[in-house]
Amino acid sequence: MPKLEPYDRQLSYSYALGLYPALNLMEKRPGRARRLLLHPGGIEGEGIAKLRRVCEALGVREEFAERVIRRESQKDNCYAAVVFNKYQDELAQNAPHVVLCQISDAGNLGTALRTCAAFGVRDVAVVRPAVDHFDPQVVRASMGAIFGVRVAVYDDFGAYRGRYPAHSLYPFMLGGSAPLEAVIRGRPEVYALIFGNEQTGLKDAYMDVGQSVRIPQSSEVDSLNLAVAIGIAVYAFAARDE
Amino acid sequence: MPKLEPYDRQLSYSYALGLYPALNLMEKRPGRARRLLLHPGGIEGEGIAKLRRVCEALGVREEFAERVIRRESQKDNCYAAVVFNKYQDELAQNAPHVVLCQISDAGNLGTALRTCAAFGVRDVAVVRPAVDHFDPQVVRASMGAIFGVRVAVYDDFGAYRGRYPAHSLYPFMLGGSAPLEAVIRGRPEVYALIFGNEQTGLKDAYMDVGQSVRIPQSSEVDSLNLAVAIGIAVYAFAARDE
Repeated sequence: MPKLEPYDRQLSYSYALGLYPALNLMEKRPGRARRLLLHPGGIEGEGIAKLRRVCEALGVREEFAERVIRRESQKDNCYAAVVFNKYQDELAQNAPHVVLCQISDAGNLGTALRTCAAFGVRDVAVVRPAVDHFDPQVVRASMGAIFGVRVAVYDDFGAYRGRYPAHSLYPFMLGGSAPLEAVIRGRPEVYALIFGNEQTGLKDAYMDVGQSVRIPQSSEVDSLNLAVAIGIAVYAFAARDE
Repeated sequence: MPKLEPYDRQLSYSYALGLYPALNLMEKRPGRARRLLLHPGGIEGEGIAKLRRVCEALGVREEFAERVIRRESQKDNCYAAVVFNKYQDELAQNAPHVVLCQISDAGNLGTALRTCAAFGVRDVAVVRPAVDHFDPQVVRASMGAIFGVRVAVYDDFGAYRGRYPAHSLYPFMLGGSAPLEAVIRGRPEVYALIFGNEQTGLKDAYMDVGQSVRIPQSSEVDSLNLAVAIGIAVYAFAARDE
């Protein structure tokens, strides 16, 4: 393996930085792991010992790479990382989806993936232009939940819809025509919750693609944080499954 | 007014950075505003014009302060800020509270305040040690919603409880004894939702202070992001008010 480059969207590999993301990678996508990077300042501790055992058992070589870890994490308290090959997923046809259109913030995308995994949504579509879902900051914000979720990227919403024409569509918009609580009663099994960009939300045209939904909120606030809105929506739809 | 110092917890003033936070300050806490700071690169635009009118009408002097704005925001696209005097709030006795114990991340606290305001919770207790709620990054993450919420800081949970003994307490914990959906049926009018630190959550002792609550989630994920968990809880409790 050649020298490890600073992360860039064009690279064929990325970094799972930190113990929890690295362990999740080794559990969910072990075949993608290429190399375990260790920081000499932090090889004590049970978590690191477990990660080293798992990597050794799967034939993933380890090496000290303090400089690379610090460069990629921009933190002083990150002591391990696993380099992994990027991969492509297909979404499931008969499961709920979350569709993120033009999501731009790495923290929001990572947090959204973590929330989806927490509530059993394992299929997430990302519609371009969008933050790179393999960016190490996304992987880290997801706490590694990204490895347990299928993520597929589409050039536009039509490309997504063309592949999954059977999902009932729920665009979330400030001016959505029905409140969330009303919509979740009687929702179908196969649905897609659609969210827009952090600053602009979904364009008005999305009002017509399905049952638009609003999360009722005080007029005092311009809008909710995107990751929070996704969390509330995914929770509310999932809570009715019990 | 003397030279504007780099923000520090000890200062008697702070900065509302960006148009939306500054406008919220002028609307909700106009008496606290001391000075409008402008960036010469961004005085065009309707939003800035509105902010300048509001400040002028209230006798808040304006000045160019490009360097201070850039230093405090650490961004190149921030064009206005209002310097404001810090203040102390008392929480309402007969309204719902959110209690944040040892919250450490500025973005999480700001997002939590924005979410509380969105769902009509206007009283937030912060239990030390915690991030400074007047930190400009908190104010900014709240999008200025902090100025429409009462925030009070306590040295420990007992000090909070001593002042507000009538609230029904709901500590949110991974091992909480009842699921959220069960708890919100029949909840009282005057309640407090309690959350712990990002890394450690609430200590086990909180199991006994009230009705502990868990947000049901997949075993695949360690926990939810704190701001997302707060969002789901506040939404679920508020949604039953309609």
